[in-house]
Amino acid sequence: MQGDAFLAQRLERWQRELFELIRIPSISTDPAHARDVGAAADWLAERMRTAGLTAVVEPTAGHPLVVGRSPSLEGAPTLLVYGHYDVQPAGPIEAWHSPPFEPRIRDGRLYARGAADDKTQILLQIAAAEAAIATGGLPLNLILLFEGEEEVGSPSLVPFLQERRHQLAAHYALIADSMMFAPGRPSLIFAMRGIAYFEIELRTSAYDLHSGQYGGAVPNAANVLAGLLATLHGPGGRIAIDGFYDDVADVAAGQREEWRRLGFDEAAWRTGAGDAALSGETGFTTPERVWIRPALDVNGLLSGYTGPGKKTVLPCTALAKLSFRLVPDQDPERVASLLEAHVRRVTPPGVDVTLRNLQGNRPWRENPEGPFFRAAGSALESAFGVAPVRVAHGGTMPIAPALHNTLGAPVLTMGFALPGANMHGPDEWFPIDHFERGARTMLRLYHALAETS
Amino acid sequence: MQGDAFLAQRLERWQRELFELIRIPSISTDPAHARDVGAAADWLAERMRTAGLTAVVEPTAGHPLVVGRSPSLEGAPTLLVYGHYDVQPAGPIEAWHSPPFEPRIRDGRLYARGAADDKTQILLQIAAAEAAIATGGLPLNLILLFEGEEEVGSPSLVPFLQERRHQLAAHYALIADSMMFAPGRPSLIFAMRGIAYFEIELRTSAYDLHSGQYGGAVPNAANVLAGLLATLHGPGGRIAIDGFYDDVADVAAGQREEWRRLGFDEAAWRTGAGDAALSGETGFTTPERVWIRPALDVNGLLSGYTGPGKKTVLPCTALAKLSFRLVPDQDPERVASLLEAHVRRVTPPGVDVTLRNLQGNRPWRENPEGPFFRAAGSALESAFGVAPVRVAHGGTMPIAPALHNTLGAPVLTMGFALPGANMHGPDEWFPIDHFERGARTMLRLYHALAETS
Repeated sequence: MQGDAFLAQRLERWQRELFELIRIPSISTDPAHARDVGAAADWLAERMRTAGLTAVVEPTAGHPLVVGRSPSLEGAPTLLVYGHYDVQPAGPIEAWHSPPFEPRIRDGRLYARGAADDKTQILLQIAAAEAAIATGGLPLNLILLFEGEEEVGSPSLVPFLQERRHQLAAHYALIADSMMFAPGRPSLIFAMRGIAYFEIELRTSAYDLHSGQYGGAVPNAANVLAGLLATLHGPGGRIAIDGFYDDVADVAAGQREEWRRLGFDEAAWRTGAGDAALSGETGFTTPERVWIRPALDVNGLLSGYTGPGKKTVLPCTALAKLSFRLVPDQDPERVASLLEAHVRRVTPPGVDVTLRNLQGNRPWRENPEGPFFRAAGSALESAFGVAPVRVAHGGTMPIAPALHNTLGAPVLTMGFALPGANMHGPDEWFPIDHFERGARTMLRLYHALAETS
Repeated sequence: MQGDAFLAQRLERWQRELFELIRIPSISTDPAHARDVGAAADWLAERMRTAGLTAVVEPTAGHPLVVGRSPSLEGAPTLLVYGHYDVQPAGPIEAWHSPPFEPRIRDGRLYARGAADDKTQILLQIAAAEAAIATGGLPLNLILLFEGEEEVGSPSLVPFLQERRHQLAAHYALIADSMMFAPGRPSLIFAMRGIAYFEIELRTSAYDLHSGQYGGAVPNAANVLAGLLATLHGPGGRIAIDGFYDDVADVAAGQREEWRRLGFDEAAWRTGAGDAALSGETGFTTPERVWIRPALDVNGLLSGYTGPGKKTVLPCTALAKLSFRLVPDQDPERVASLLEAHVRRVTPPGVDVTLRNLQGNRPWRENPEGPFFRAAGSALESAFGVAPVRVAHGGTMPIAPALHNTLGAPVLTMGFALPGANMHGPDEWFPIDHFERGARTMLRLYHALAETS
């Protein structure tokens, strides 16, 4: 492929530029870094222009979006690529082996905050576009949509998408913010779970009581909360809320069979999970439990006295944070109603309960047999020398269903980081040779999509 | 009775002296008030000497004990009276209607920190002794044992009792640190619950995990803790630990019948409990649930994220503080073993559990039909004009079983504060006329005990 040689010749320059981008500490959650976030947006727009794209920095109520576009090609399909240029805070500096905003390469890994999530992955998108433009031109219309608020929940992105849906109209939408299933196993992600996040607060009396004076004769908010939470799970690791599984769609037996042949590395996965045991819903494998089955987790508990030693108190309030991971076709609003009904039913008399709905995002699932996935599959196979695996992701990206629903385009999530990349932790890393492989994949995908249409 | 007139003539002087004692902020938990605690001990020893007793301030590793003794009376029985001169911190000053260490009388109530707990109640013991000594002499041997560490868990008292058990040998032991069942209802307390206090900590992985990446496929410490705590209670408000009720002794049907005729004021009790609902073990009344039945309360819960908003975390640890109130013949050590066995049984595989035993104190129960109680009953009836009620107390005083076991003497708890006295809260109060009534009760008790022997 023509662009490959162009890419290969310019790798050193790209690496220098990647280091420049990484050195801008574009931490979106920290107001002290707001200027850095803006500087990263400007840097990207400028780099897009050098590549031969037009680029606009779009202001929002928060951090700006950067939108790059290739020269219009009448009659060709349009591919929109989403990514983000903001990063997580570095966390405790002493946990890093090299400074988080000073990129270092050790043993083929680029270590830095943003190395995997998501700066290298968006820069390789610009590199691929530049290589295509410089060597015969892009065979399709390309839109690069990079936001600066992914790490703070993307508050401006979905409204922007809605408002500009005609300008952003695309035939395919790629999310370039993920990882491969394993080293040497390039991956097509076709589903992500949704989320429904709640806070439950119980009150049993106006103030805390003495456990000697009252213990055994009045409800205790902490006891009641533990009992309530325990009713949410039933035998076999199932969620015991009436109607909860009504909307859970099956996944094709063929897909599950394919997954069983994946060679999922249980030991490595457990190591990544801090040596946790494996547990969950009976009848499903670990990947299935995370990818295609819903989950209910208590995220926080607080009641009574929690300092050192003892206090003989009957707590009058107790708080739990809890969240569901949802799968197609579950709806966070319906789950909220089912939970509310359950909580009302199991709360004993004399206990006030407040249920707060803190977040709701729908799950996303695409048909992995469609032309977009076929084109991406052949592009990956050509760039990596091995057929990709089709997998899902247990987390939630509101952008996935938003792209699908707003643009009406099939969505694919494809990325080149590797498991254990420490995306939000210290020593975040990215396999440096995946910059070139990722860009080569994109060059092939452009052509495969152009031929598909 | 001779002493009555003596008491009545000197009430103004006693009140002045009581105010002096209350103005000493003898807050035992606050190192900044250590001198005040010592000053209160010296004040009491001096006042005992004025009353005609010998008095020694006994140093301990913490705050001193004050031991007063009447002139030895060969062949007469010995009554030991226990009380304490230390107080709780005042708490938020703005919650008080008058300064906590500036005693004020309003509507017949003395308001101050220590008014009910326990300064007025120990001073009336000295007043009664003085009145007896001044009007013909005490008919028995009296030992006053006042500690300065009751509000910090009495760390020095039981060792002191053990070490000096021969010097403190007594035929009767009175705990002068309690309240009456209701206004106009003088009370003999014959039982208190014990306590067994634990901390449970669960660990499911080396660090917190992301709920998207792992939710549904690994144990979650908060989920597991809620489930574990829920197994501790069964139907009918019973504690569902194998063998837990084996050692729970019945209370005579006659006693329970007597209690049903007490006219327990449920509405007032609920008001005191911050409008809590009534709940608990089926088949028992509210007073019975608190007085003669064990209880298990979660005192604290902590796990995961508990700040504002949401965090999609799978907590790797979860902590609960929980405590049992025990009744005769339950043993805190045996309860610890039963709980440990239960926790091991219900903890799922792959979850590390640590059970810490933070406190264990035995319950106490005396035979309320014995001569000590008969003597005290007739003394109360004579001083208050109404027969006393025999009741129990749901809290725990380690001194009660310690007096019983170390001295081998029957123990009675009798006090003159009233319900709602705010012993550890703002606006603590004591019915001021109960100073004289309480001292009159003691004068009668001296004689009744002298005649009993």
